[in-house]
Amino acid sequence: MSEKMIVGVDLGGTNLKAGAVTQKGQVVSRVEVPTHAEEGPDAVIGRIVGAVEQAIEDSGCSKSDVIAVGCGAPGPLNWETGIVYIPPNLPGWKDVPLAQMLTDRLGITSFIENDANSAAYGENWTGAGREVKDLVALTLGTGIGGAIILDNKLWRGVDGTAGEIGHMIIQVDGRPCNCGSRGCLEQYGSATGIVTTAREMIATGRDTIMVDMADGDLDNLTSKDVYEAYQRRDELAAEVFAETGRLLGIGLTTLANLLNPEMIVICGGVIAAGDVLFDPMRQTLRELAFKEPGERAQVVPAQLGGDAGLIGAAGVALQRVGPGI
Amino acid sequence: MSEKMIVGVDLGGTNLKAGAVTQKGQVVSRVEVPTHAEEGPDAVIGRIVGAVEQAIEDSGCSKSDVIAVGCGAPGPLNWETGIVYIPPNLPGWKDVPLAQMLTDRLGITSFIENDANSAAYGENWTGAGREVKDLVALTLGTGIGGAIILDNKLWRGVDGTAGEIGHMIIQVDGRPCNCGSRGCLEQYGSATGIVTTAREMIATGRDTIMVDMADGDLDNLTSKDVYEAYQRRDELAAEVFAETGRLLGIGLTTLANLLNPEMIVICGGVIAAGDVLFDPMRQTLRELAFKEPGERAQVVPAQLGGDAGLIGAAGVALQRVGPGI
Repeated sequence: MSEKMIVGVDLGGTNLKAGAVTQKGQVVSRVEVPTHAEEGPDAVIGRIVGAVEQAIEDSGCSKSDVIAVGCGAPGPLNWETGIVYIPPNLPGWKDVPLAQMLTDRLGITSFIENDANSAAYGENWTGAGREVKDLVALTLGTGIGGAIILDNKLWRGVDGTAGEIGHMIIQVDGRPCNCGSRGCLEQYGSATGIVTTAREMIATGRDTIMVDMADGDLDNLTSKDVYEAYQRRDELAAEVFAETGRLLGIGLTTLANLLNPEMIVICGGVIAAGDVLFDPMRQTLRELAFKEPGERAQVVPAQLGGDAGLIGAAGVALQRVGPGI
Repeated sequence: MSEKMIVGVDLGGTNLKAGAVTQKGQVVSRVEVPTHAEEGPDAVIGRIVGAVEQAIEDSGCSKSDVIAVGCGAPGPLNWETGIVYIPPNLPGWKDVPLAQMLTDRLGITSFIENDANSAAYGENWTGAGREVKDLVALTLGTGIGGAIILDNKLWRGVDGTAGEIGHMIIQVDGRPCNCGSRGCLEQYGSATGIVTTAREMIATGRDTIMVDMADGDLDNLTSKDVYEAYQRRDELAAEVFAETGRLLGIGLTTLANLLNPEMIVICGGVIAAGDVLFDPMRQTLRELAFKEPGERAQVVPAQLGGDAGLIGAAGVALQRVGPGI
């Protein structure tokens, strides 16, 4: 008899990944296909089923060796009922009973979890946070996703909406946010925030190569431009990262004072910036938080890269179904 | 045989209270004496022992009917080891093994818990939050204390320092805080914050009776003056409360987005202000938080008044020792 496996799925707006994962969190096969989200839910779910079956075959297992399928998906969704509401990144989806449909089509018990929670759980299971019990994860991208893990379990809140770290308010009446509020961390610490901060600093008349990089029109400026300018030793670009790190550090201070976690894991492409972002984050946290929680919370980059969501979705499914034999 | 009891203690800088509490959280006797904190730890602990013994006698029980003693005390302290570090309100205290000393002198297993956690636990056990599992509590006083209860258990964090709701940062580079940081909620939503906001508004030259109430010197202005001015229909004083409620609501928004709790309980003398404070708090939360957590979180005043700490300390002790027979 083969070892029992879980299959993890990471459903993104552009690509979807599936992989067979051992009960210790090791990925033994990996399949990635385009999502083609524009084709609507039925076609996408068909591709998930195909990818899962391929991942099982590639792993050398059979379906009967698979304990469960866990699918990380863009929210909003209900992890308990398995329904995906109206995700902005998946056109045509509305109240899709994804977990039930996967269970029916695959013949394997399936669960869903939001993607930020999945990635955080993956990092807690086998990644940067594998030695700790309590962690907070922030995914820095166009926005900021987040997740809270307490005692090795996701803290989802009463309605499953907890962990919206990007929508902590760090500035009363601050920058307007897509969520309808103002001054949310997301508007300062995400790729979007980096660009806004760069534009504000450039508007003060400071000298920078970023103006040329954007062909003189700051509407064209991207966070990649800011990073490239930093790598080309542009002083203002370095200041943009320092300020972004400081503002993220202010959010981390609130998290540390509130939750006193062991670790804060930073995920997302932006972590490639490295020390220029992490140094001011850590320094601000140490300076502004209470002594014990500020010194306790290690601020570390994620370790699993693109596999975090898949591994975490498998891990959450395993936790929900209980260990197999 | 009498019913088994727990004795709860609420150790404050001015007075200390002890009461025998049933396993259902009902207070059956209540003793209150001055703390005389200036006499130092030994004298104070002697008075705690005396108050506990009196409370047991008044309840008609004997020591053998008491399962445990729970003592709420000013932090910082370590709830696990039972040591009180250097509380600002208890002069001469330094690393006092309070739980062990009470256990030895009383011959009853004793526990300690910080006062904000005790009060929150009391409200969750028998007060405003008795029907819910997940709540956040804010105590508005000179500062802002806080506590987080998840699944009917205190969330204390790795070092026991979690729940510092007063030190969420709501304003980057905002008002300086005693903790060394800036822009902490405490500087906006506490009695101190009310006075600061009043002074700032008065400084804009607006007409108000508060100037006369402070004998022309705004250094004399207190939060009670602001409340009295509001009761005397001073328009600016009403605006101070509206703005204080709004700023508190911004803190509640972060809490709701992060934790998605069922309830937010507001404790402390300031709640006497009622709707003038609660209306803008609730309105801001509904406007700025995500829909589900914003609508979910009921914002309610505490119900146990001065008994919350005593009842909660007893409840925490009961949870730690397990139910008696």
